[in-house]
Amino acid sequence: MNIRRLASSQPDFAEQMDQLLAWEAVSDASVQGAVTEIVDRVRTEGDEAVIEFTNRFDRMSVDSMAALELNQQQLQEALDGLDDNTRSALLAAAERVRMYHDRQKQDSWQYEEADGTVLGQKVTPMDRVGIYVPGGKAAYPSSVLMNAIPAHVAGVEEIIMVVPTPDGELNQLVLAAGVSRVFTIGGAQAVAALAYGTATVPKVDKIVGPGNIYVATAKRMVFGAVGIDMIAGPSEILVVCDGQTDPDWITMDLFSQAEHDEDAQSILVSTDADFLDQVQASIERLLPTMERQEIIQTSLLERGALILAQDQQDATAIINRIAPEHLELSVAEPQAWLPEIRHAGAIFMGRYTAEALGDYCAGPNHVLPTSGTARFSSPLGVYDFQKRSSLIMCSADGASELGKVASVLARGEFLTAHARSAEYRIKN
Amino acid sequence: MNIRRLASSQPDFAEQMDQLLAWEAVSDASVQGAVTEIVDRVRTEGDEAVIEFTNRFDRMSVDSMAALELNQQQLQEALDGLDDNTRSALLAAAERVRMYHDRQKQDSWQYEEADGTVLGQKVTPMDRVGIYVPGGKAAYPSSVLMNAIPAHVAGVEEIIMVVPTPDGELNQLVLAAGVSRVFTIGGAQAVAALAYGTATVPKVDKIVGPGNIYVATAKRMVFGAVGIDMIAGPSEILVVCDGQTDPDWITMDLFSQAEHDEDAQSILVSTDADFLDQVQASIERLLPTMERQEIIQTSLLERGALILAQDQQDATAIINRIAPEHLELSVAEPQAWLPEIRHAGAIFMGRYTAEALGDYCAGPNHVLPTSGTARFSSPLGVYDFQKRSSLIMCSADGASELGKVASVLARGEFLTAHARSAEYRIKN
Repeated sequence: MNIRRLASSQPDFAEQMDQLLAWEAVSDASVQGAVTEIVDRVRTEGDEAVIEFTNRFDRMSVDSMAALELNQQQLQEALDGLDDNTRSALLAAAERVRMYHDRQKQDSWQYEEADGTVLGQKVTPMDRVGIYVPGGKAAYPSSVLMNAIPAHVAGVEEIIMVVPTPDGELNQLVLAAGVSRVFTIGGAQAVAALAYGTATVPKVDKIVGPGNIYVATAKRMVFGAVGIDMIAGPSEILVVCDGQTDPDWITMDLFSQAEHDEDAQSILVSTDADFLDQVQASIERLLPTMERQEIIQTSLLERGALILAQDQQDATAIINRIAPEHLELSVAEPQAWLPEIRHAGAIFMGRYTAEALGDYCAGPNHVLPTSGTARFSSPLGVYDFQKRSSLIMCSADGASELGKVASVLARGEFLTAHARSAEYRIKN
Repeated sequence: MNIRRLASSQPDFAEQMDQLLAWEAVSDASVQGAVTEIVDRVRTEGDEAVIEFTNRFDRMSVDSMAALELNQQQLQEALDGLDDNTRSALLAAAERVRMYHDRQKQDSWQYEEADGTVLGQKVTPMDRVGIYVPGGKAAYPSSVLMNAIPAHVAGVEEIIMVVPTPDGELNQLVLAAGVSRVFTIGGAQAVAALAYGTATVPKVDKIVGPGNIYVATAKRMVFGAVGIDMIAGPSEILVVCDGQTDPDWITMDLFSQAEHDEDAQSILVSTDADFLDQVQASIERLLPTMERQEIIQTSLLERGALILAQDQQDATAIINRIAPEHLELSVAEPQAWLPEIRHAGAIFMGRYTAEALGDYCAGPNHVLPTSGTARFSSPLGVYDFQKRSSLIMCSADGASELGKVASVLARGEFLTAHARSAEYRIKN
């Protein structure tokens, strides 16, 4: 099994990296057309359209929305039904995630200027948000935690979860994390129902959570009517290792990313060519022992790479070029690398910090910017469920002074009502 | 001139409010098709397509990108060429805006747990951002300040501005605010050039700034390749007055919103019916004195309203229903209103705080969420140009404990590479 080998010293390294990282979710005209129809129909017909599309796409046969909502008793029973080990792991993870996110909460502030004018910023939670949880195999309870807890911490009063149940199949574990209401609907129809509201599904202020290309296209379409989070691409990891970590540990860290799906991307960078060979050997030895070996193999062959870097500075340039979703710094002094790292979703520092620990329970969120979008976006956080209002309270003196400045600029822009509104507040 | 009158006591008030607030930017199939073609061609053909579309849509005849870039000398000359009054007003405004935004800057943090595990959040600026400035009549230098200063404060090193110059007409004032590079291009072609880069226009990480329906549609389309800010609708103000402010002041505050364009919305809420009459009379008396009286009249007739509320609680419910871009609390004790106000872009408190002061120089940003999007979004701010990376550094003990939890949850999700990666770090 030949995993792609690159070296930053090669003259065409930049082009090779472009090829390695190329990714685009294909939302072609047929997807666009289908989603437009679904969104329009749900918006105008409401529940009736939601039921029709759910029956069609999830191969169900329900005749009312009541059959597509899980009640609080069902949710509680799902939690109670877990074995003790799983329930306590889930609760331990939730507690750690909550503690980390508590620190992200932003507070309102005000300050007074010398002339008595007060300026400030008021921070408030959103009223109601929707969480999209992918159904079937990808329905992870940890994702429910990671989406719901920041909203809870922000103070959002109502959290509406949607999760499709193709063929009626529902991963019971998913139900365990407490949210206000849960509808077993998915796809573009669920996004549209949350964005515009139906007689049954409440209209929300923001929709978060990953989904397939139909879900992503629908989110892009309803953006503006509601807020949305980023459009998620396949998951990826960049491991940077100084060659001193057990190669099997590194291999398993690469596998843990690759096992998500065939499009997932696992990349290892090291300044030690021998170490790359050792990891290659470890991959070949461990792969046959893996439950999801076919997915891992396809992912590594199609999208994986072992990259030889020249030194720390060179490796850092590769990190910033990739702007990875997950960055594992399996090196002796990871803190020394931090100042020069500009773009990464989450940074796992030191040999003990396997990405898997962060995926479940370390505390930070596992919903992270993919496909290089860490250049401009952040992990899902409490800040995604809070918003700000600017505060301005001018004293009579303050308004008089500001009025003079505003008047000049407003007249420069030919906005004379603005100018006169300001001038009324200038003292004689 | 009969401005719509509503009273919250009317049985159909909720429906009337829905009608009053209904707004949707129409991005029909023809806009969608045109923008798709422009974006695709700029993406594949680069500068050549940018030049072609600019010549076509802005009625220009240039044959190189050099003719579509303003150099630093031209920018400096524009600043130097301002009259002293305007230049000092612009500099005073910029200074106040910068001071306010300095307080929005977010810092990195780390904390250590009892077992030596370190968690944190690293905050970094984006590398390069694009600012779209509408051309022609709507080319406001204050908007350049409001978009560029938060990016500067965040630490963004390179700010690329685009501003269309239809028929070659360029509002010189616009050039005054310093940014790294300025291209005189606009429309969907400018958005595509910034999103994907061309030989001349650098690819940016995020595009901010308002634009027409073509610009908004292009931003929605390139979202994911780059970050975007919100999609702006027409500007609006909600003035709440206790009836004790000079009616002419309130009238001019409503006019200052209405003069932006015919779609702008100005609404007054008061518990004092007589005061609504006084403002109506003031509007009729002052309107003929306004330079932009036709725009103001159309805006007030089409989208304005004078609303009678029953009491403070009722008025607050109306505020939260509207989630206004600008909220003016022209009342005796505005601070007493604050706790119950959940949604507003900016809150102008007290009789002296005309919105116009905030538009230019009070300090807070004038780029604000419109059309009710204050329910889920915030004023443009320093936070829009910063992003976060989660930090996790497990101690050996920490990894061992977390590994046990992660292992249980990973196996519950059938992700065994995740489980084994965590288990490697569990102590024997």
